[in-house]
Amino acid sequence: MVNGIERPLDLLNNAKGKEVLVQLKNDKQLVGTLLAFDIHINIVMDNAKEMANGEVKRNIGLTFLRGDTIIFISPASLTASTQAAEKKG
Amino acid sequence: MVNGIERPLDLLNNAKGKEVLVQLKNDKQLVGTLLAFDIHINIVMDNAKEMANGEVKRNIGLTFLRGDTIIFISPASLTASTQAAEKKG
Amino acid sequence: MVNGIERPLDLLNNAKGKEVLVQLKNDKQLVGTLLAFDIHINIVMDNAKEMANGEVKRNIGLTFLRGDTIIFISPASLTASTQAAEKKG
Amino acid sequence: MVNGIERPLDLLNNAKGKEVLVQLKNDKQLVGTLLAFDIHINIVMDNAKEMANGEVKRNIGLTFLRGDTIIFISPASLTASTQAAEKKG
Amino acid sequence: MVNGIERPLDLLNNAKGKEVLVQLKNDKQLVGTLLAFDIHINIVMDNAKEMANGEVKRNIGLTFLRGDTIIFISPASLTASTQAAEKKG
Amino acid sequence: MVNGIERPLDLLNNAKGKEVLVQLKNDKQLVGTLLAFDIHINIVMDNAKEMANGEVKRNIGLTFLRGDTIIFISPASLTASTQAAEKKG
Amino acid sequence: MVNGIERPLDLLNNAKGKEVLVQLKNDKQLVGTLLAFDIHINIVMDNAKEMANGEVKRNIGLTFLRGDTIIFISPASLTASTQAAEKKG
Repeated sequence: MVNGIERPLDLLNNAKGKEVLVQLKNDKQLVGTLLAFDIHINIVMDNAKEMANGEVKRNIGLTFLRGDTIIFISPASLTASTQAAEKKG
Repeated sequence: MVNGIERPLDLLNNAKGKEVLVQLKNDKQLVGTLLAFDIHINIVMDNAKEMANGEVKRNIGLTFLRGDTIIFISPASLTASTQAAEKKG
Repeated sequence: MVNGIERPLDLLNNAKGKEVLVQLKNDKQLVGTLLAFDIHINIVMDNAKEMANGEVKRNIGLTFLRGDTIIFISPASLTASTQAAEKKG
Repeated sequence: MVNGIERPLDLLNNAKGKEVLVQLKNDKQLVGTLLAFDIHINIVMDNAKEMANGEVKRNIGLTFLRGDTIIFISPASLTASTQAAEKKG
Repeated sequence: MVNGIERPLDLLNNAKGKEVLVQLKNDKQLVGTLLAFDIHINIVMDNAKEMANGEVKRNIGLTFLRGDTIIFISPASLTASTQAAEKKG
Repeated sequence: MVNGIERPLDLLNNAKGKEVLVQLKNDKQLVGTLLAFDIHINIVMDNAKEMANGEVKRNIGLTFLRGDTIIFISPASLTASTQAAEKKG
Repeated sequence: MVNGIERPLDLLNNAKGKEVLVQLKNDKQLVGTLLAFDIHINIVMDNAKEMANGEVKRNIGLTFLRGDTIIFISPASLTASTQAAEKKG
């Protein structure tokens, strides 16, 4: 596939070391740098901040986040096509 | 079967690269292009947008979505018969 | 057994290609044609419509529905005895 | 054991073909004839009726019910001792 | 161990044929005779009664109860020491 | 490790025969003597009492408690260092 | 990886013996010293305190905490870069 994402975990692998937005089931959001993940979608983020309505509510820093609390994980402000371009560039 | 869907995952396989509507358990909806899925129904969407009442609430872009947050996934505005026609066409 | 249903999945197998009513845990209902199912009770429906109070709320069309959101699946307006009669007829 | 119930599923096996009351987690009840069950306690009922406050709310007919929505399943108006008597009788 | 309970299921084994109080997650309670259980803590009770505020709300009789709806199961009005005494007695 | 707790279950093993406080997901608390546990964190307590706001609400006595209803289990009024001291003492 | 965290559990391993903040699904927080964890993210904390709005609500002391009640675990006031510096230092 042109963007190099054949399985869902490929996206998380590509996002390692990058800024991600994590939407939680409890309606909160975390932004921070994705450092690691496993097959349960447990993740480690660095410089994590809890956001609400676009404002920082809490600085959490380095954190281990359980996968079963997550709705989605998005590399910040990227689409697959810009990501593919980045890889070639 | 006439439409080529013998197992549920066949539908997701047919929908790769196409626009899908994803209904979440938290009453929100995402629309975007389905890039990948796995047996847990974890999916990757590109150009994902969060919708409510037919309006775009948030641009999410490229995203990894956990399967256990999903109610249904629908290829946008298609029925199995039109899909079968497309394949032959 | 007279009606040919020895295991629960036999009913779903008999209902393939037929109209079913699916009651969801979120109090909504879907009606449509059952195309496929798996052991997780993930199903594919065609021409699915979301119903509330006997009225169509939304046309969903072809859809993949996660099994863990389902309460029950009923072949529309059939009992096991009429179904057995159909098979013989 | 005098009533022939050594494991929980023995009760469901004895109840096949009989009227049962199924209490659901969503506070609703179904009554109908138990046709089949599996180890997930997925069941098939015939002539199922949804009850509330002792009144029939909806005729559901033949239905597949997911086990994870069930609190309890009771053979209607029987105790183990009357059931044992029935078997001998 | 003096009371013969080394593993949690030993308590349920000791309670077979005796009156138990079962506290459910939905805030209701069942009292009745424990007939059988399995490793999922699915149980069968005889002469089960649904209780609220110390009063009988419903006679359920013989019933199969799914384990995932249970908070605790207590042999009625016994402590481990009186139970050990009973066994020796 | 100085306090002899290398794996989480070591703490439960150390707490056998001692008073524990069990915080449940339904906001209630049980205090009593821990008799047994298994890998699902199903536990048996003796002389269990249900507490709310520091007052005894209900005497439950000997009870089997399902692990999936538990938030935490604390040996009453102990820290790891006092516990290590007890062991040497 | 520069900070020595390749898999999520590496962070928990690094945090052993250190102060952590644990955010629970029930909106409460625990702070205390992480003593042990397992693959279910069950953890043991020492000197645990329940916090709300930055104030200590309850002293819990030594405690076993079930993993399925946890949202995140953060080594208090550390980022991955300061942690890497600590290791070299």
